[in-house]
Amino acid sequence: MSLDAWPRIAVVGATGCVGREALAILAQRGVAADRVLALASARSAGRRIPYTGAQLRVGALDDDALRGVDLALFMADAATARAHAPAALDAGVTVIDNSSAFRADPRAPLVVPEVNGRELAGTARPVLVANPNCSTILMLVALEPLRRAFGIIGVDVCTYQAVSGAGGAAMDELLAQTRAALDDEVIAPAAFHEPCAFNVFSHDAPTDPVTGVNGEERKMIEETRRIWGDAAVRICPTCVRVPALRAHTLALLVTLRRPASEAQVRESLAKGEGLRIVDDRSANRFPTPRNATGRDEVLVGRIRPDPCAALDRRGRTRRWCALIAGDQLRKGAALNGVQIGVALGRRVLGEKGFGPGSRTRAWWTRSAGV
Amino acid sequence: MSLDAWPRIAVVGATGCVGREALAILAQRGVAADRVLALASARSAGRRIPYTGAQLRVGALDDDALRGVDLALFMADAATARAHAPAALDAGVTVIDNSSAFRADPRAPLVVPEVNGRELAGTARPVLVANPNCSTILMLVALEPLRRAFGIIGVDVCTYQAVSGAGGAAMDELLAQTRAALDDEVIAPAAFHEPCAFNVFSHDAPTDPVTGVNGEERKMIEETRRIWGDAAVRICPTCVRVPALRAHTLALLVTLRRPASEAQVRESLAKGEGLRIVDDRSANRFPTPRNATGRDEVLVGRIRPDPCAALDRRGRTRRWCALIAGDQLRKGAALNGVQIGVALGRRVLGEKGFGPGSRTRAWWTRSAGV
Repeated sequence: MSLDAWPRIAVVGATGCVGREALAILAQRGVAADRVLALASARSAGRRIPYTGAQLRVGALDDDALRGVDLALFMADAATARAHAPAALDAGVTVIDNSSAFRADPRAPLVVPEVNGRELAGTARPVLVANPNCSTILMLVALEPLRRAFGIIGVDVCTYQAVSGAGGAAMDELLAQTRAALDDEVIAPAAFHEPCAFNVFSHDAPTDPVTGVNGEERKMIEETRRIWGDAAVRICPTCVRVPALRAHTLALLVTLRRPASEAQVRESLAKGEGLRIVDDRSANRFPTPRNATGRDEVLVGRIRPDPCAALDRRGRTRRWCALIAGDQLRKGAALNGVQIGVALGRRVLGEKGFGPGSRTRAWWTRSAGV
Repeated sequence: MSLDAWPRIAVVGATGCVGREALAILAQRGVAADRVLALASARSAGRRIPYTGAQLRVGALDDDALRGVDLALFMADAATARAHAPAALDAGVTVIDNSSAFRADPRAPLVVPEVNGRELAGTARPVLVANPNCSTILMLVALEPLRRAFGIIGVDVCTYQAVSGAGGAAMDELLAQTRAALDDEVIAPAAFHEPCAFNVFSHDAPTDPVTGVNGEERKMIEETRRIWGDAAVRICPTCVRVPALRAHTLALLVTLRRPASEAQVRESLAKGEGLRIVDDRSANRFPTPRNATGRDEVLVGRIRPDPCAALDRRGRTRRWCALIAGDQLRKGAALNGVQIGVALGRRVLGEKGFGPGSRTRAWWTRSAGV
């Protein structure tokens, strides 16, 4: 995957755990240090980050900081994205935003390249592309082969989410709190509302007082509908944090539109993009967050029909279970963003089909909603 | 709850983590030390266990060990139960077995007192009563009010199971492995096939090579059907271990037979036996394994309709979600066994309705299947 189309790439939120992962991926993709600009809040400015043998000096993110940048990977929070992404876009910078700020904005495509990468073809340049929620990305990569082959009318999903989704401070808290617990000491929770060491708790996103659905679950429902272009698909999520560091695990129960046999399900998954089957029943080896850590692929296993679903005479049913695991910081965040950058870059290099092209650079801030 | 009906109570597997919990519960229930016999394998015989200020000397479990015992709580594994429970029963001892050995045996009632305690009324004395699987007990206590009020046709359940279900060695391994991980060392897994520190993995029970269903999931299906007396109920479980010590968490998606409104669901749960509602949406406080640890009740929260289910004009739907947590060693094992002992004891004291009564003591070993 090449990022050659982008002479100068900025990583916004470079000192955060997703930003650091984005830098690591750029380095792995062969982007030279002099093409990379590391930006963060004023508080972190001046820090140095090792990068392919060199060091990047972290700059402060202000309105001038993105001057001369071609591609900006916003790997920070929604407030940062709202404050700086529109101006960057208007200044001609292509923006990929990992926060939730623009995920529902009709002007910003919401993209998992393996699923709806095609949507990038219709964009004008510059463009702001939103990176979906981490659990949603992992789920949709695993389900895409089944959706294409059989259609999907519903997914019941329970998540086993690592603490990394709440940032580096949450990862530090899990480690510190665990060490304290082993020494019979107690550290009051700060990153979360519950202790995370040796515990499990409903996701820390706020819970809607009326519906009882929390923010993470709402994202999984709404983002799946948008990415699939299917407002009717039924997603019933329960999002839960577990004491894992940086990879999420999800238990899926999928209702297909058309029934499928196990052979058909396995055949379609085997052809899936961005996933890897780990499904050894005899050795009880299935996806785990430890094995998914640091990997680009989503691991998929425990593939089986709902044990209480009736099979038709060809051994087919519409209800299928799976357990998946994927690195929240990589495919769940930074890697997906970089992949979008690569896909957009292919079009920049070819300059083919990049929308109207003649759009003025102020189209974003002039259009409604920002 | 009184255990007065049983002059002499043995705890088999007294040095294991469920056995120790059973002893703690007997002490809390006021059973004097001279009424309690602690038994274990020959390897553990001679050890001393503190009990209400006194000490119990652990005896070796052999065929003579249960002589003079009225009630034996088998808190050991299935092999121990198969080897010793039938002879004990034939010698007139009432047996409550926590293992899976007799859970499918039609001669042994399989009982969660809050759910089907009534089944004890039809038993002959002495009787062998099987204690169900821990996840099944916790799930059925939480669901019983809904089953009585609305009927249940299916449950999709994902478990977040503590390591205690695999015994004290597994709890020790989680602690040791976690400490090692914090020190960047590695301890090879012994209790489990996967590392448990900062990890999540499909339950360690063997996975059926044909169906893909593991042993824990199979128990949840078959035991629920037996306890509910409903061979058609559809249970679709995914059983997963998480790094929690001794309380299980379960995410439930229930399909009711008759639709219910949220007010109706809450009203029925509020009247439930053996459970406690923990459901504070504004503070994001819901059941956790830490809060369930050491408690007798199953905690029930995140009560909400499937967000994608259509509500009828009275706000009713058949699909309801909940997150529950319960102490695996207490209600999931030892406490449920003691509760069965109390319920049987009431009948012994009253001597009312204790089946034929005149049955010879050898009915168990003479009947088929053992």
